[in-house]
Amino acid sequence: MIDMIKQWRHVFKLDPDREITDNALDQVCMSGTDAIIIGGSSGITYDNTVELMSRVRRYELPCVLEVSDLEAVVPGFDGYLIPMVLNTTDSQWIIGQHQQAIERYGYLIPWDLLITEGYIVLHADSTVARLTGADTELTTAAAAAYAQAGERLLNLPIIYMEYSGTFGDMELVSETHRQLERAHLIYGGGIDTAEKAGQAAQAADTVVVGNIVYSNLSQALETVQAVKGSA
Amino acid sequence: MIDMIKQWRHVFKLDPDREITDNALDQVCMSGTDAIIIGGSSGITYDNTVELMSRVRRYELPCVLEVSDLEAVVPGFDGYLIPMVLNTTDSQWIIGQHQQAIERYGYLIPWDLLITEGYIVLHADSTVARLTGADTELTTAAAAAYAQAGERLLNLPIIYMEYSGTFGDMELVSETHRQLERAHLIYGGGIDTAEKAGQAAQAADTVVVGNIVYSNLSQALETVQAVKGSA
Repeated sequence: MIDMIKQWRHVFKLDPDREITDNALDQVCMSGTDAIIIGGSSGITYDNTVELMSRVRRYELPCVLEVSDLEAVVPGFDGYLIPMVLNTTDSQWIIGQHQQAIERYGYLIPWDLLITEGYIVLHADSTVARLTGADTELTTAAAAAYAQAGERLLNLPIIYMEYSGTFGDMELVSETHRQLERAHLIYGGGIDTAEKAGQAAQAADTVVVGNIVYSNLSQALETVQAVKGSA
Repeated sequence: MIDMIKQWRHVFKLDPDREITDNALDQVCMSGTDAIIIGGSSGITYDNTVELMSRVRRYELPCVLEVSDLEAVVPGFDGYLIPMVLNTTDSQWIIGQHQQAIERYGYLIPWDLLITEGYIVLHADSTVARLTGADTELTTAAAAAYAQAGERLLNLPIIYMEYSGTFGDMELVSETHRQLERAHLIYGGGIDTAEKAGQAAQAADTVVVGNIVYSNLSQALETVQAVKGSA
């Protein structure tokens, strides 16, 4: 699983709670992106997840589910990303919900398809920040320290810097990246132009493009080459 | 580090905040125990830690520090155990303090000497439970789920079941142990006789003997053979 993810430079994140036409989905999946992540912060159900998965499954593209709601865990994905919010004061979002899920579904869990992501949530005005009570006011040193705690004390294979709703501080992302030795750094948030995609590609290992798919498809498609053409 | 710890069947945990005579310490260190852990929940200072370490260092025995207070981190130990409380609602004890420590001392940290322990705190009436706000009322299934979350989502090399102040439920410990695939299980709490030491040795990989050293040294010493003679 992690070996596959480490090869991804560009991925589109699609939200089961939002409409996408067959034509738009075709362009997204044929864009040259490396993978599709299915996930979102609200309104995710089993039904809308299974529907979107089956539509994406027509394409030969890795498709993973970022698990946000236990009720919406659908079998058949290539992998399951398990977010763990590092910069929250509410332990439910670090380990509590995970423990409850294991207690309930333990024997059903396909452990070798699971990858834990250490999320650092950095945009206060976002659904995920409000939902998880994340402390988003981090200096570069504080963010890097969360990333190192995730990598070295928790052995997390992925650190995910989440600026959902705004384009992030690329200096902060780059510096955090420099402090990591093994973990794979994913960046997401506010990428709505090829230029921003290129900047994010310089700072992170994998660039996630989400919302712009729904508001400006052609600009979303341009981010693929901007990332893949980046060093 | 973890390879060394995996060979330990019996260890004594010594508290820098408590008095121990040279004669008693000699008997502890020459008892055949596999290692000394230095640590405690309160009253730990740099001075009392360095003093106890230098006294234990006269013996050819691995000696590690269980870090509970950043001010009391003394160089010169064979390793540093970093506790992370899995069953607390207060994220400070999971990752918060760790992040702060890394932010402050990052460049000084000897990462390869650090081992993270996933603590499951199970005795409500203990200093560690009160201090960390641990949810100690766990069923066997709930405890096992915390252990699995620690092992499989956080990749922790050690799960530490802490009954500090009372002898634990060996059925719960055994069942949790059975649910682990890779992590090393440490048991600590209430071992004041050879018989209890033997029972704990059946349930866990490593048995920690602490308080009884200070109240009944000869019974403490008997726990070594009880553990080492156990299958």
